[in-house]
Amino acid sequence: MAIIVQKFGGTSVGSLERIENVAEQIIKTKRQGHQVVAVLSAMSGETNRLTELANQLDPNPSPREVDMLLASGEQVSIALLSIALIKRGFSAVSLLAHQIGLQTDNRFNKARILNVDNQRMLQELQQGHIVIVAGFQGVDHEGNITTLGRGGSDTSAVAIATALQAKECQIFTDVDGVYTTDPRIDENARKLPYVSFEEMLEMASSGAKVLQSRSVEFAGNHKMPLRVLSSFTEGEGTSITFEQQADKKHPVSAITSHKDEAMICVVGIQCGEQFRSKLLILLAKVDIEIDMLTQTAKDVDKINFTFTVHQHDYQQAMLITKSLTAKFSVDELFGDNRVVKVSAIGNGMRSHSGVAAKLFECLLANNIDVYLVSAAEIKISVLVKEENLTRSVQVLHKKFQLNTII
Amino acid sequence: MAIIVQKFGGTSVGSLERIENVAEQIIKTKRQGHQVVAVLSAMSGETNRLTELANQLDPNPSPREVDMLLASGEQVSIALLSIALIKRGFSAVSLLAHQIGLQTDNRFNKARILNVDNQRMLQELQQGHIVIVAGFQGVDHEGNITTLGRGGSDTSAVAIATALQAKECQIFTDVDGVYTTDPRIDENARKLPYVSFEEMLEMASSGAKVLQSRSVEFAGNHKMPLRVLSSFTEGEGTSITFEQQADKKHPVSAITSHKDEAMICVVGIQCGEQFRSKLLILLAKVDIEIDMLTQTAKDVDKINFTFTVHQHDYQQAMLITKSLTAKFSVDELFGDNRVVKVSAIGNGMRSHSGVAAKLFECLLANNIDVYLVSAAEIKISVLVKEENLTRSVQVLHKKFQLNTII
Repeated sequence: MAIIVQKFGGTSVGSLERIENVAEQIIKTKRQGHQVVAVLSAMSGETNRLTELANQLDPNPSPREVDMLLASGEQVSIALLSIALIKRGFSAVSLLAHQIGLQTDNRFNKARILNVDNQRMLQELQQGHIVIVAGFQGVDHEGNITTLGRGGSDTSAVAIATALQAKECQIFTDVDGVYTTDPRIDENARKLPYVSFEEMLEMASSGAKVLQSRSVEFAGNHKMPLRVLSSFTEGEGTSITFEQQADKKHPVSAITSHKDEAMICVVGIQCGEQFRSKLLILLAKVDIEIDMLTQTAKDVDKINFTFTVHQHDYQQAMLITKSLTAKFSVDELFGDNRVVKVSAIGNGMRSHSGVAAKLFECLLANNIDVYLVSAAEIKISVLVKEENLTRSVQVLHKKFQLNTII
Repeated sequence: MAIIVQKFGGTSVGSLERIENVAEQIIKTKRQGHQVVAVLSAMSGETNRLTELANQLDPNPSPREVDMLLASGEQVSIALLSIALIKRGFSAVSLLAHQIGLQTDNRFNKARILNVDNQRMLQELQQGHIVIVAGFQGVDHEGNITTLGRGGSDTSAVAIATALQAKECQIFTDVDGVYTTDPRIDENARKLPYVSFEEMLEMASSGAKVLQSRSVEFAGNHKMPLRVLSSFTEGEGTSITFEQQADKKHPVSAITSHKDEAMICVVGIQCGEQFRSKLLILLAKVDIEIDMLTQTAKDVDKINFTFTVHQHDYQQAMLITKSLTAKFSVDELFGDNRVVKVSAIGNGMRSHSGVAAKLFECLLANNIDVYLVSAAEIKISVLVKEENLTRSVQVLHKKFQLNTII
C-alpha cells in the first residue's frame, strides 16, 4: 500500500459542508487502496479573523504569541475533519505539529522546517487510521509553536510526504491545475497536464500563486512528485514531474506576472562594489529579500545599481538605501513601486535560442517599456509599468503560442 | 517573591476589552511584587460554538477529536492575553498544557490531572515573565490532547498552583465571592468573607456553581489556599481557608440548592443486597454517579432502595435499573426527575446538635415534603419537589439566621 499525502487549503475546508466533501475525497483515495495522510490549513477566514483580534490589541503583536494564536486555526479544521471521517465509519486521528515532531527553527511567523519524525504517523497508518495533520505549524527546539508563513501548509504537506516516503503529494486547491498563465488576466490560458519542477519553481517565484515556492523547492530537492488538483471538480490536475518534457513547439510553458514588486535605483555610485555589498548586508539583516538585481557601469569609477524588493518592504528598503547613500557619493536615488514583473518560463528555453530576442521584439512591437531584465536558465523576467501588466501577459502568451497548447 | 496563580474564566476573557482588563489585573498583582501565573478558560461562547460545529458533523463526535477541537479555545485566549500584556511593556509567555507537562489520564472529555511539571513555568518566572497557561486541557501518556470537562480550568489552576507551591490560587469569576445562598434565589444572600475547605467542598457538590468541586478537593488535599474574586469589581472576595472558624451564632454557613437531580425508587426488592451491589456496578460501568442514596427495610426479606443521579443520566439509569429489576423480584419501580436537592452546610454543625431537627421542623412548618435525606458531618441535604426549591431555600436561609450574617 502506497502512502498518499493530500493537502487541503483554507477554502477547501472553509465550511462544514466543504469539510464533508474533503472527507469524501479522502475516503475515495483510501478505497483505492492507499494509506492517506491529509494536511490541512485553517478554515478560510479564520487566520484573518485571529490576526485581526491580535492587531486590535497590538498593531505589532509579539511574533511568538501570534504563532500560538494562529496555530489554533488548523487545530479546529483537523479535529472537524476527523470527526467527519469517523462519522463515516473510517478511523481517523488528528495530530498537531508537535505530536508528529515537525521541528522548525525559531523564526516565528516564517519558520523553516528542520525535520519531521515519521514514527507516530507510520504507527497510526499501520493501524489502518487516516492521519489528519495540522499544516502551517511547527515546533522549535524549546517546544514553542511556530508557523511557516502564509501558504506554509503546502510546505508542511511536502515535508510530511517526504518523511513518509509517500508515493505522491497532492495539493488540493481552488483551481484545477497549473495554467499557462493566470486565466483572470488572459482568458486564453490553458491548463498544463504537467510541468517540470524547475518550471514550477520559477513560476511560483514569479507570481503563480498556485503553490508556495518553498514547497516546490522542498519537493524538488527531495524528489517528491507533486500534483495540483481541485477540491471542487474532478480531474487529473497538473502533475509536477522530474521528466524533462522537451516540447519543440513550445519553448515557453507559461507566462507569469507578479504585482508586488518595487524598484530602487541608485545612479552613479563611487566605490560601487563596497556600496553594493554593504547594502545587501543591511537588507539581509532585516530579512528583506531582493528579487531582481542589475548593475551597470556609468563611467570609469561609477556604477548604477538597480534592484527590486517586495512592495511590503519598499519603504524600509528605501530608508536603508537612503541612509547608506549619505555615506557614499551617489548621483541619484529613486524608486518606483508601481511596477510589475512579467516572466516567460519554459524548460524548452534550454535548447531553444532566441526566446529572449522574441520576447523583447514582442514587447517593443507593443510599445511596452522594459525597466529591468533578469534571465535564468529557463526564465526571462522583465520589469514593466503596472498599467502594462495585462497587455504584456496577453501579447507574450500569444507570441509563444500558448493560446493553442494541447 | 511569592507566586500567585490567577484563574480567569470564560466571561472574564469574553471580549478583547475584558482581556485587556485581565491584563491590568495581572499587572496590578505583578506590581505588588508577586510572580504571576494566569490560567485561562476559552473566551465565553467559544467552547459552545466549537461543540456545535462538532455536533453538526456528528451528534456523537469522537471524544478524542472533541478534545483536540475544544483545546483550541484556550489557545486563542492565552495568546491574546499575552499580546495585551506585552503591548503594556510586560514580558509574557503563553503555554499550552503539553508545554508545561500537565499530564492527565486518557479519559477524553473528563480527564483527571496526574502530574504538572513546574520546570518550564519556574524557568519563565525566574526570567521575569508573566506565565499564561491554557486551562481546561492536558495531555495523556501518548501525547494526545485531553480536556478536563466543564469548569476544568479551576482544577488546572489549583494543580498548577500546587506544582509551583504558590502562595495563593485566586479564582476570578463573574461573582465577587461565595454567598450564603444563591442571590438569584434569595435576595437576602450575603457574601462570606471566608469559608472552610470542607464547607466549600460540600457547597460545590451541592449546587454552588462558583467553584468546581474537583478543584476544591484538589486544593484541600494539597493545602493550597484559594480565593474567589470578581473579575469586574474590586474586593477581597472570599477566602477558602483551613482554619476551623467556629461561629457559635451560625452553625449553618450556607444553604445551597441543586436542580439537576433525578430520583429512582425501587420498592420491595428480594435479595436486596445482591440487587444493590449489581446495580451500583452496572451504573459505575457507564460512569453514572450516584448522589443521594437510602435503603430501608420493607419487611423481613425485602428492602426499598432509593437513589438520585444527575438528570442527564436519568433515562439511562432508569433503563439499567429496569433491566435489573426484570431479573429480581421487585414490587415497584418508579422515578421522578422533577426533584431538587436543598442542603444546609456549616462547620458549626460539628459542635451544634439539633441542626437537623431545626431543619425538618422548619420545612414541616412550611408544608414542604421531604423525599430523601442524606447527612454528612457538616451537611444535611433533603430532596424536595422542584416547585418548592425557592421557598425551601428562603425559609432555611432565614431560619438559620443567614439573613443577618456579618
